Amino acid sequence: MPNKPLILITNDDGFEARGLEALVEAAKDFGEIVVITPDGHRSGMGHAITMNVPLRVKLYKTENGIKYYRSNGTSVDCVKLGQRVVLGNRKIDLLLSGINHGSNSSVSIIYSGTMAAAIEASFEGIPAIGFSLLDYSSKADFSVAVNYTRKIIEKVLQNGLPKHICLNVNIPKLPFEEIKGIRITRQTLGYWQEDLEEHTDPFGGKYYWLAGFLVNLEQEATDTCEWALHNGYVAVTPVHFDMTSHQTINKLKHWEND
Amino acid sequence: MPNKPLILITNDDGFEARGLEALVEAAKDFGEIVVITPDGHRSGMGHAITMNVPLRVKLYKTENGIKYYRSNGTSVDCVKLGQRVVLGNRKIDLLLSGINHGSNSSVSIIYSGTMAAAIEASFEGIPAIGFSLLDYSSKADFSVAVNYTRKIIEKVLQNGLPKHICLNVNIPKLPFEEIKGIRITRQTLGYWQEDLEEHTDPFGGKYYWLAGFLVNLEQEATDTCEWALHNGYVAVTPVHFDMTSHQTINKLKHWEND
Repeated sequence: MPNKPLILITNDDGFEARGLEALVEAAKDFGEIVVITPDGHRSGMGHAITMNVPLRVKLYKTENGIKYYRSNGTSVDCVKLGQRVVLGNRKIDLLLSGINHGSNSSVSIIYSGTMAAAIEASFEGIPAIGFSLLDYSSKADFSVAVNYTRKIIEKVLQNGLPKHICLNVNIPKLPFEEIKGIRITRQTLGYWQEDLEEHTDPFGGKYYWLAGFLVNLEQEATDTCEWALHNGYVAVTPVHFDMTSHQTINKLKHWEND
Repeated sequence: MPNKPLILITNDDGFEARGLEALVEAAKDFGEIVVITPDGHRSGMGHAITMNVPLRVKLYKTENGIKYYRSNGTSVDCVKLGQRVVLGNRKIDLLLSGINHGSNSSVSIIYSGTMAAAIEASFEGIPAIGFSLLDYSSKADFSVAVNYTRKIIEKVLQNGLPKHICLNVNIPKLPFEEIKGIRITRQTLGYWQEDLEEHTDPFGGKYYWLAGFLVNLEQEATDTCEWALHNGYVAVTPVHFDMTSHQTINKLKHWEND
């Protein structure tokens, strides 16, 4: 099948994550699959890249004709290594990342290694999708997520995505029959309210664990990813990487002449 | 002075960076300064946060009445620790990050720990500015940068910034008299073209160093940060953290009914 799309799969939960299995299961019939993931957890690492230590990449298994590689790098490093080293700059038709254990709605997109991988691919115009399931348990049931993941991969392969756009897909933790469908959403305005738990080590030193909860600053809005996710919908947010606040440009323009 | 603004300073180059000294020098007369930085280099770590190891924070010096803290975390962790632990949730009037050794123009903003700190502060509505000097040398001359940094801090303290907006300031490597002024710019469309240098270790294993160069996809545009920076201007890009591609929402809306 010379026209089989080339699909690169990564994640930020590492090579042993059950969400990775689920994503491969969802994608395997759509094209030629190559998997490259971190060799352990790289959650919450945002768009981190590895510059201070050398990167390594290793083929660790071939299963059902799919090659699985792992690396000491982050999810973003995996995209770069996958593209440049493993695939030798072959044209990638689709980059898939996930399925993340836990949602990446609202501002979580910016901390998320899952979404960073998708965003990295979009820099060069590779269509890309990050998938996340609103279930932080290592025993999460991915079967419903696989179903919707498949639907969304199919749509993107059929129709493409606008250049430099990727998708942030968040799937609720619900039985299939309770999911109401797909909603195209926008990123919810919000932030993480930290609770930096203070502990004391055996030597009297203080240390802190970073924990917290998401504050939704627009509870009433019904077009957001948070609303969709908590109202029974699969939230699909189109994402770009232009962080310019275009509407602020004019407000500051007078600085040029001050 | 009860009305002195409270200014939190951080960076991603670590507590020993000369750019930090320069930023403190620029800011010191504008308010009450508290410094909290990583205990070493955290460049290219994007919006990474530390969840797998406990965070520590330590007062390591007091100089000219300014307290300097360092942490084992990233620049984003420093913002959280500064706000919650060091300042005990006192209201921060301004967050400053930098001055980074090297520019953070175009898509570099997304890899940048300097800008991640500013963006983190903007989540909760703290006005924030990330400063970067287009000079990667550890011996870089920051004197011109200090001058412009001071001008921009003054403008922001006087006029504020729209809520949830921060600034990405990139300063060219030029003598003062050759800088033409400030330009309010937008993020240049571009990507990093990696050159993953292959090496072999003494045991025959291959490893890779991540290096590369920025590809500017809009060479002709004159309203971008890249253009300004390379044409003698200090580039000031207003930044928001809504990564939604709003114009793509309507294009995908039909998925809801497919």
